[in-house]
Amino acid sequence: MSEKPTVTAALIVIGNEVLSGRTQDANVRFLAVGLNNVGVRLREVRVIADAEDEIVEAINALRAKFDYVFTTGGIGPTHDDITSAAVAKALGREFGRNAEAEAILRDHYRPEDVTEARLRMADMPEGAELIDNPVSRAPGFRVDNVIVMPGVPRIMQAMFDGYKHNLVGGDPVQSVSITVALPEGVMAAPLGQLQQDHAAVEFGSYPFVRHGRVGTCLVVRSADEGALQAAADALSAMIREMGGEPIED
Amino acid sequence: MSEKPTVTAALIVIGNEVLSGRTQDANVRFLAVGLNNVGVRLREVRVIADAEDEIVEAINALRAKFDYVFTTGGIGPTHDDITSAAVAKALGREFGRNAEAEAILRDHYRPEDVTEARLRMADMPEGAELIDNPVSRAPGFRVDNVIVMPGVPRIMQAMFDGYKHNLVGGDPVQSVSITVALPEGVMAAPLGQLQQDHAAVEFGSYPFVRHGRVGTCLVVRSADEGALQAAADALSAMIREMGGEPIED
Repeated sequence: MSEKPTVTAALIVIGNEVLSGRTQDANVRFLAVGLNNVGVRLREVRVIADAEDEIVEAINALRAKFDYVFTTGGIGPTHDDITSAAVAKALGREFGRNAEAEAILRDHYRPEDVTEARLRMADMPEGAELIDNPVSRAPGFRVDNVIVMPGVPRIMQAMFDGYKHNLVGGDPVQSVSITVALPEGVMAAPLGQLQQDHAAVEFGSYPFVRHGRVGTCLVVRSADEGALQAAADALSAMIREMGGEPIED
Repeated sequence: MSEKPTVTAALIVIGNEVLSGRTQDANVRFLAVGLNNVGVRLREVRVIADAEDEIVEAINALRAKFDYVFTTGGIGPTHDDITSAAVAKALGREFGRNAEAEAILRDHYRPEDVTEARLRMADMPEGAELIDNPVSRAPGFRVDNVIVMPGVPRIMQAMFDGYKHNLVGGDPVQSVSITVALPEGVMAAPLGQLQQDHAAVEFGSYPFVRHGRVGTCLVVRSADEGALQAAADALSAMIREMGGEPIED
């Protein structure tokens, strides 16, 4: 059994463009997988509008509840980029120009391209620790347990990959996925029994319709590898007993 | 100008499978677009775990704040399907077998396939109004302003399309998207001025990196068509003044 504590995170997607349906979110899944790889479990996601009071409320609700809070979006140079100021407000910190971030921007742009709008990207809460942006330079930052990143997937992903080793995680959750051509309804009772018998793992049941046929994807998850394998074996045996063929992904 | 009030909604995605990164969410964008088409604006999305207290808390926070609250996921026959009971708890209603839903299930399955697990899909909060499921029959339901749907995209989408005309909406938000091969930083100041001059519309600025080049997608949104067109025209003029070529999607 693992001795490490469970480390949790929430993600706030600041994005009118996701709420309007213009954009298909691509950040949730990347962060869910990337966080789990370093032992941090994504426990909640909120997608909220580009509105200061909404951002402040979400940050304060989630930073009290989870070990880490990530935000994506709203840290560019335009009028709708209000995340950094809202984070400062939520944390009760002064908000102003970060000298180190300003130096990075001045180094990146030609002097004639250093506009006041671009320098706004160096305005951060007091005490912000910068996070390197290897793609377009304008840094993300961390204050307390809040980690602020851009919304553009390519930039966010590069930034996260460079930063993730600074996160202090527990054991990653491992999972086994088993697909079976049976509707979940016929397996519900034995599956509930399996969940009771294997309390250290989580059994998830996800029905699907493919080519007009109903099937189920069963997922077993645990940070405890031994418990996981025992549960997965018991699940496969249960499926065979019901006349199904377990197909492990 | 429109006289209709603004009608809002939130969506709660009940989904360990999204939080674990196993599944790419496909419901947010569909509902964002579908709701807007009937004049309802999606204002917040929460993705939460299959945990009763999380569901109760999210339902109660959001039903007080928005006109409609949609949930997807967790209404099947297995042990991890706890949404309906959690909704009853959040609303302070009795939870038990809905006779009309039970009749639908008994009509759908062969008698030998009517298991107690499947009948659990007929357990609902008292006073639930059923929502037809044209794909796999097990109905969704509505209680007060909470609308409970399954998580499987194909089933949820068919259910929503059959139900959406029961929603009382305002004017849909219209939008114009203009792509330009300029970084948003050079347009930030005039764009902020445009936002001030056209307060009835919302200007969004979304940078992107494509084939190694930075560009910006500018989106103008409003429920007021006249104001929208005037703002989009002013935006195109601004882009041309800066030497860019506005490309309307």
